[in-house]
Amino acid sequence: MSIVPAVIEELAEHFARFPGVGRKSARRMAFYLLEQPREDVLNLAKKLVDVKDRISRCPVCNHITEEIPCRICSDPKRDAGLLCVVEDSMDVFSIEKTASFRGRYHVLGGLISPLDGVGPDDLAIDSLIPRMESVREIIFAVNPSVEGDTTAFYMKKLVADRDIKLSFLARGIPMGSDLEYIDEATLTRALEGRTEL
Amino acid sequence: MSIVPAVIEELAEHFARFPGVGRKSARRMAFYLLEQPREDVLNLAKKLVDVKDRISRCPVCNHITEEIPCRICSDPKRDAGLLCVVEDSMDVFSIEKTASFRGRYHVLGGLISPLDGVGPDDLAIDSLIPRMESVREIIFAVNPSVEGDTTAFYMKKLVADRDIKLSFLARGIPMGSDLEYIDEATLTRALEGRTEL
Repeated sequence: MSIVPAVIEELAEHFARFPGVGRKSARRMAFYLLEQPREDVLNLAKKLVDVKDRISRCPVCNHITEEIPCRICSDPKRDAGLLCVVEDSMDVFSIEKTASFRGRYHVLGGLISPLDGVGPDDLAIDSLIPRMESVREIIFAVNPSVEGDTTAFYMKKLVADRDIKLSFLARGIPMGSDLEYIDEATLTRALEGRTEL
Repeated sequence: MSIVPAVIEELAEHFARFPGVGRKSARRMAFYLLEQPREDVLNLAKKLVDVKDRISRCPVCNHITEEIPCRICSDPKRDAGLLCVVEDSMDVFSIEKTASFRGRYHVLGGLISPLDGVGPDDLAIDSLIPRMESVREIIFAVNPSVEGDTTAFYMKKLVADRDIKLSFLARGIPMGSDLEYIDEATLTRALEGRTEL
């Protein structure tokens, strides 16, 4: 009797699959939409379809894009000899925001994770290998994690026979942070990687 | 150059309007959907439209419903003489889950809040007044807040000339809580409303 109408529960179930959304928040979202003008909800529904229809993967770098190839790959002003390899497209946007990288990207679409059954074949490695021919440096820019280290190790093997410099993002103390609150692993890395004044 | 594609930003803006969703989470949701199979996303879009098309307000109690009147209002086993007045439909579901209320509901659709410009005319009061003719008790079950108290005061005036008992949810210490962590206002209320063993 008089539980939540099925269609609302079904919508909430969709939202509950979103990253960082629990069952209660998902239901609150469904109720929120119920209160919105019909036009707004139809608009959101249209946007969802739009995103799937208009966004695809760049065949060169695997970054999400509306144009093919993507704007970074087709920009002659970007250094084609310097490649930044990242886990996903979010990382591209993060690095682009710094405005301090003028090379190009390669989006792996994941990291090697034997525990999750993710091997090199599941990543965009096939499209990376031909690009290596014209590259002098690869910056491997992934989050510090076991999967990141595993993938880094694999990258190292890939470039071993080639004349490519492989570099990593510096690990250390983030700007504006307080030594008191830094975890020991980060502090250890910062000490090991200390630079001269 | 190469910022996030507009269609993704637009979708993220929609999500950022959801309750409890910040800009970063909204963008993460948009990216999440981008990774999902096309069919799943179309399904979600359809569900959104479905919710708006199939759910309406019960003309009797203002609760959200797929049937008209709603299942609670049309259930002859529910006590029509006992009315629980709540702020929104979420509250109906919360009370129904307790399975300890067998009366009917009236969903106000908000609370009186002069600061936000919400007056009695903005609530489902028009449909509440005729129902009062056949009611012997109204349980006013709203969250403890200034708006709740203001609306309670208004309800009190509404039932003043009628032979209706107006009751409120008991305020006190929640089950399973620890006196040490209860705020003073709640503890004061619990002392004031103490019951004999």
